[in-house]
Amino acid sequence: MKGPSSLEELIDSLRCLPGVGPKSAQRMAYHLLQRARPGAQRLAQALTQALERIRHCEMCNSFAEEAVCALCRSPRRDKSLLCVVESPTDLAMVEQAQCYQGLYFVLMGRLSPLDGIGPREIHLERLIERASGGEVQEVILATNFTVEGEATAHYIGELLRAKGLKVSRIARGLPAGGELEHVDSSTLAQAVVERREA
Amino acid sequence: MKGPSSLEELIDSLRCLPGVGPKSAQRMAYHLLQRARPGAQRLAQALTQALERIRHCEMCNSFAEEAVCALCRSPRRDKSLLCVVESPTDLAMVEQAQCYQGLYFVLMGRLSPLDGIGPREIHLERLIERASGGEVQEVILATNFTVEGEATAHYIGELLRAKGLKVSRIARGLPAGGELEHVDSSTLAQAVVERREA
Repeated sequence: MKGPSSLEELIDSLRCLPGVGPKSAQRMAYHLLQRARPGAQRLAQALTQALERIRHCEMCNSFAEEAVCALCRSPRRDKSLLCVVESPTDLAMVEQAQCYQGLYFVLMGRLSPLDGIGPREIHLERLIERASGGEVQEVILATNFTVEGEATAHYIGELLRAKGLKVSRIARGLPAGGELEHVDSSTLAQAVVERREA
Repeated sequence: MKGPSSLEELIDSLRCLPGVGPKSAQRMAYHLLQRARPGAQRLAQALTQALERIRHCEMCNSFAEEAVCALCRSPRRDKSLLCVVESPTDLAMVEQAQCYQGLYFVLMGRLSPLDGIGPREIHLERLIERASGGEVQEVILATNFTVEGEATAHYIGELLRAKGLKVSRIARGLPAGGELEHVDSSTLAQAVVERREA
């Protein structure tokens, strides 16, 4: 015996959430209807409003409600530096570290040919246009140190260097407070290779 | 630097989903806005529609779009049997087993005093009224074999027996195809205690 059709539809549509399969979609639907109706109402409104209002900043490509986001508009930022990150989360992490006063470009992904994510999907044309506009003096590649993040940094680096731009990659090495005994050998090897004059 | 406010609101409101903390709420929001906008639209509509339409069946207390659900209205069901389950999922499991032709009462929970779930929250007054209406000959307690499910079955059993009703509990024992070697000793002990004449 099937449940009411708007319940089936709710369960089915919850599956658009990442990592939510049929079982957890059902659990979520029951929870919302049984114990969290005000929360469900709020979620429906928040979804509708976010879909209406949120687009991508024309400058940095991160999520924004305006054509150009507050960070890109800020007069305090150094317009000669452009930091390339994979996601808005990564941008937030760099901001939290309070080590950087330049601007950003958010790829909204990383090159991953097997998943159909190529140069177009990570907006490389826009990045190159932005970087070669004249104001940017250095592009800092801050993609992740995963296989895909490294490949993405390499690919972007080649393109930008061909345009005569200065390109750098954030350093890999031991974490702050890190002990040699507890670090993986690939990180340690990189830290040795990339040693700096003391 | 905080993100746009309707993004913050979306992330925050996703946390009403069970098991979703700040990190996964953020991941979900980014995924919806970045790669699943049609899905997000559909989810918003499904939530609104489900909240409008879904209520509890007056007979069995399960989710329904009508005052009395299709199962309770069915002329094919045996009105002398009433099976008590904790949730609509459990009802669906019993239906799938195709072993039962009676009606149901869904508690929508289990007694759990520490979580503030007492007799009122699991609608015991309605269950007792329903069971003592005259039509019901036997109440089958099919709550889970967890500590709370057992306590709930015991509590309901006492109440209904006091009203002179016949009350039974579904059997505990080895699962179909189960081997003694691979079953926990509490289940095995119960299977021995509850042995039937062969």
